[in-house]
Amino acid sequence: MAMRRAAQQAIQALGSSVSQSRRLHQATPGSKKIVGVFYKAGEYSEKNPNFVGCVERGLGIGDWLESQGHQYIVTDDKEGPHCELEKHIPDMHVLITTPFHPAYVTAERIKKAKNLQLLLTAGIGSDHIDLKAAADAGLTVAEVTGSNVVSVAEDELMRILILVRNFVPGHQQVIRGEWDVAAISYRSYDLEGKTVGTIGAGRIGKLLLQRLKPFNCNLLYHDRLKMDAELEQQIGAKFEEDLDAMLPKCDVIVINMPLTEKTKGLFNKERIAKCKKGVLIVNNARGAIMDTQAVADACASGHIAGYSGDVWNPQPAPKDHPWRYMPNQAMTPHISGTTIDGQLRYAAGTKDMLDRYFKGEDFPPQNYIVKEGKLASQYQ
Amino acid sequence: MAMRRAAQQAIQALGSSVSQSRRLHQATPGSKKIVGVFYKAGEYSEKNPNFVGCVERGLGIGDWLESQGHQYIVTDDKEGPHCELEKHIPDMHVLITTPFHPAYVTAERIKKAKNLQLLLTAGIGSDHIDLKAAADAGLTVAEVTGSNVVSVAEDELMRILILVRNFVPGHQQVIRGEWDVAAISYRSYDLEGKTVGTIGAGRIGKLLLQRLKPFNCNLLYHDRLKMDAELEQQIGAKFEEDLDAMLPKCDVIVINMPLTEKTKGLFNKERIAKCKKGVLIVNNARGAIMDTQAVADACASGHIAGYSGDVWNPQPAPKDHPWRYMPNQAMTPHISGTTIDGQLRYAAGTKDMLDRYFKGEDFPPQNYIVKEGKLASQYQ
Repeated sequence: MAMRRAAQQAIQALGSSVSQSRRLHQATPGSKKIVGVFYKAGEYSEKNPNFVGCVERGLGIGDWLESQGHQYIVTDDKEGPHCELEKHIPDMHVLITTPFHPAYVTAERIKKAKNLQLLLTAGIGSDHIDLKAAADAGLTVAEVTGSNVVSVAEDELMRILILVRNFVPGHQQVIRGEWDVAAISYRSYDLEGKTVGTIGAGRIGKLLLQRLKPFNCNLLYHDRLKMDAELEQQIGAKFEEDLDAMLPKCDVIVINMPLTEKTKGLFNKERIAKCKKGVLIVNNARGAIMDTQAVADACASGHIAGYSGDVWNPQPAPKDHPWRYMPNQAMTPHISGTTIDGQLRYAAGTKDMLDRYFKGEDFPPQNYIVKEGKLASQYQ
Repeated sequence: MAMRRAAQQAIQALGSSVSQSRRLHQATPGSKKIVGVFYKAGEYSEKNPNFVGCVERGLGIGDWLESQGHQYIVTDDKEGPHCELEKHIPDMHVLITTPFHPAYVTAERIKKAKNLQLLLTAGIGSDHIDLKAAADAGLTVAEVTGSNVVSVAEDELMRILILVRNFVPGHQQVIRGEWDVAAISYRSYDLEGKTVGTIGAGRIGKLLLQRLKPFNCNLLYHDRLKMDAELEQQIGAKFEEDLDAMLPKCDVIVINMPLTEKTKGLFNKERIAKCKKGVLIVNNARGAIMDTQAVADACASGHIAGYSGDVWNPQPAPKDHPWRYMPNQAMTPHISGTTIDGQLRYAAGTKDMLDRYFKGEDFPPQNYIVKEGKLASQYQ
């Protein structure tokens, strides 16, 4: 845990009169207590000056916050009743979290956080927050919308190719001192000519489709909304209104929707059975969209021929998480959105929103997840 | 080793009068002895009906050859004086080889092969053949040009992303039961905005550049020939006439040229030193274009921050090949061109050339590597 101490004056000013209203953009002058929860980098924090997304660097905004008289607590200790985060819940004004090392903001924690006004997600995806409880408490929740959509879309295309090519067992042969081309190539294919369907064609889904276009695939998308005809033509993907009708057509399925009450467990045993035998699935969205055991079972049976993603339920994934041990998986820890380029963008976006918050200004409209008691459309 | 026996009649006709001339397309009627060298699939041969590139299936042309009265010998046993291949060298008319499990066709073997007329590469890349010796002996050498260029280009883009994202150590964490996002993300980047240079912009290089276009990179290419302005504009890459001037500009370098006397060992210690510190290198072309130890040393020092490819020198790579053990490698055995889709194409292309050979017809002009004593331009 790294901690930044504000000036003595700022600390004394704390807890004075800011809790009368939780609503933003009303006059609540004076020093704020801001808590950031990030993953720990240890020895790696010194290896790259742009590695700002870790607890040791705290988005690189510590000096700036302190120079303005605010207090900034940074920690990776987020679980259980005695964690560092719990100590600060009663008097913090702002909590910054990330999807990569999520601090779960439950209704209970919100109830305890009497001074809390603002929940910022440094990145995209605020499902680690009980959004209904946040809305009911009058809190504002905002993300750095767009900050790492390119990072995630690129990573999805990598995973599609890793599964289509059967890369992982090939690399395992190399490090084990083996050479058996047949054991890889009997299930290695070209992506060209295959049917790829994205479930969700928001920012990330569209960027993926654009990058897939030169691969000469048959591209499909399912979404709440059909794109306008011109964009659809440009992207080269066909709209599928009925998800269950799209699934059996796809050689590759990519999950690109937020985790909501409606999408939680969407890929259960029954829905997986609707997919083509031998389907490849890429999921960088959220682990809880899948039924964990149903995915592991379908990989074991071969109905799913490959599964790759970097999202798990919960995170960090425990040592005994079944996806670590299922066949034909190409999983990683949650990394796709936390590239160095992505970190610099979501750090800048978080700083911008804090600056607006201090000045009582609105955020960019697309960043709001909960505003004045209402959830953004994708979470409704 | 699998062997297909021709009809008794065909075998009796063998070795009659076909050795007077080695040149193709002259009347040499009667049964031919065709030898194919492929990798062994063992248990995997039964797992996919389209897995035709293995020794057990022999490109799926055995019945067709035998029905025409030819003899077809298929083996994976290609090394040493007592291997199966050596037994057939004195009287074979056609040798079919692949780059994935290369039968090295030396000047000595060519000298022994008195009946040999035609060397076919099922795939692309005939550097396992002593082309000068083949030309001097009046042999025809041909490849299935274009058969797996899409397969290789897709695979190269996968490898670029695997290195840029630092995928391999992320996946290793998963299978070891670990979770340490920082250990991956401190050196994980977006591809967007980076400079990618291909050395060689022939068929594969162009397909790669086309697939890279939506990634918003700075694309460079070095080649013997500048593309015409319209194609260059469409592909969106800038020509670099001087290789050594291009190298220090590149975040990512992709090798896309054939192995020739000129390109052998091109990436030695001095040339690697000209690359940007932290360069990522992808090489699906040929292992011998690199100085093996110089690459391993540069990976150890960090000058090369990642190296991925599926070509080695020699192949199969021995257990003690240094590339198996160097840091930040994402190597595989030679698989990129032997996808199931690629196999079906190079099997069909090989069958087509055999059919033309039997009929005394010319091959598609782009397939010739050695014709009438002359090497194709890329090998000169």
